[in-house]
Amino acid sequence: MEESETLPGGEKKRRARKLAESDPHREVVTRNAEETRERILQAGIAEFSAHGFSGARIDRIAAAASINIRMLYHYFGDKAGLYVAVLERVLGNLRHEELKVDVDHVSPTDGMVQLFEFIDGHFHAHPELISLLSAENLQRAVFLKRSRETPLMSSPVIGHIEKLLRRGAAEGLFRPAIDPLHLYVVMVALSYFHRSNAHSLTAIFGVDVGERSWQAEHSRIAKAVVLGYVLAEGKG
Amino acid sequence: MEESETLPGGEKKRRARKLAESDPHREVVTRNAEETRERILQAGIAEFSAHGFSGARIDRIAAAASINIRMLYHYFGDKAGLYVAVLERVLGNLRHEELKVDVDHVSPTDGMVQLFEFIDGHFHAHPELISLLSAENLQRAVFLKRSRETPLMSSPVIGHIEKLLRRGAAEGLFRPAIDPLHLYVVMVALSYFHRSNAHSLTAIFGVDVGERSWQAEHSRIAKAVVLGYVLAEGKG
Repeated sequence: MEESETLPGGEKKRRARKLAESDPHREVVTRNAEETRERILQAGIAEFSAHGFSGARIDRIAAAASINIRMLYHYFGDKAGLYVAVLERVLGNLRHEELKVDVDHVSPTDGMVQLFEFIDGHFHAHPELISLLSAENLQRAVFLKRSRETPLMSSPVIGHIEKLLRRGAAEGLFRPAIDPLHLYVVMVALSYFHRSNAHSLTAIFGVDVGERSWQAEHSRIAKAVVLGYVLAEGKG
Repeated sequence: MEESETLPGGEKKRRARKLAESDPHREVVTRNAEETRERILQAGIAEFSAHGFSGARIDRIAAAASINIRMLYHYFGDKAGLYVAVLERVLGNLRHEELKVDVDHVSPTDGMVQLFEFIDGHFHAHPELISLLSAENLQRAVFLKRSRETPLMSSPVIGHIEKLLRRGAAEGLFRPAIDPLHLYVVMVALSYFHRSNAHSLTAIFGVDVGERSWQAEHSRIAKAVVLGYVLAEGKG
């Protein structure tokens, strides 16, 4: 037990699975442990996205996950440990969507459209990701900077975009020399801001920007904006 | 005094000025009052943008403005009153920049470029506006919705963009039928997100996105993205 606590999460899981394979009793224990961990994580996502790091309460998370607080500390160390795991999970889910684009077999234009639609669709379906990121930025991402997993799991996305851009430019479809990280930030900006700031935009301009049809129209426009930049002139 | 407290801010100021015009002593009193009000407002901008509405402390604002708390309440009613005035002021400053574009006399393309540069430049120069808006959206803009002044002062911006779009489309320079509010939201998204989320982007992608040259390059790209959308094909 002592040794396993010093191991990174992935290695811990791998060893647990290996042990479980050779022992049916252990398999049940491991499955229960993973289920409990998952329940705490889901309760944590809800609590931290609703109240931010400072406002979140560990006792509410424990109650929502139907476990006692001691167990929460056993799995995640402390409040900050759980919060970092929450950030890793919600960002991991976004990465998972983004990496679904098969950049080797789709046309570069279709690949770019798919990528934008995955990102945009993910932010639409996961307002909790927006709240968590906005709040984390207000505190200068001090907790996200503690996550070692996040940069490791994120770099492949930029590699994917780079591949699409290279293929698109080679075929004369895309502008040459587009920077993949800058393009990615443009795509996320156009998937994020009209959602993160819908309340203020509504108050400022007297139009219900949060309303479903306005948001859908904005996604359509945002896609055209991205393509207008990526596509070489006259290829629209 | 009782009557003036029930009057809206603009009317109160107008009457005070009128009184001051006919009485040199009152003029000094009025000027001092306006200076005090301004000092409180500036201290409020700093405090609320650093700590959010709940975290902000009225005693710190009073100390920073070198006044006593009673005077703060005299001018702004309560903490929420000062906070709404702070939001109105920072948004009013952005509106002031945006409306500098002379949409009747500049070419539509230059007008659009100028408008984007004013917006982008304003968010670059005023990180406190970004913090205030992001925090206010996390609380569903409950306070901003109380401001009557904000929608009134904001609608001319959309009218300005509409005018540029109409002229640009008539001259065959711009895509026809671009919606001014949607375009405005695209412009702000591309001026806002890489700043509001610079900390998380840096932690996620291991590139210092907050760094001056990265930010400058992104502004350049964002302008090209906006123009790529607005300009009719092949007119770039």
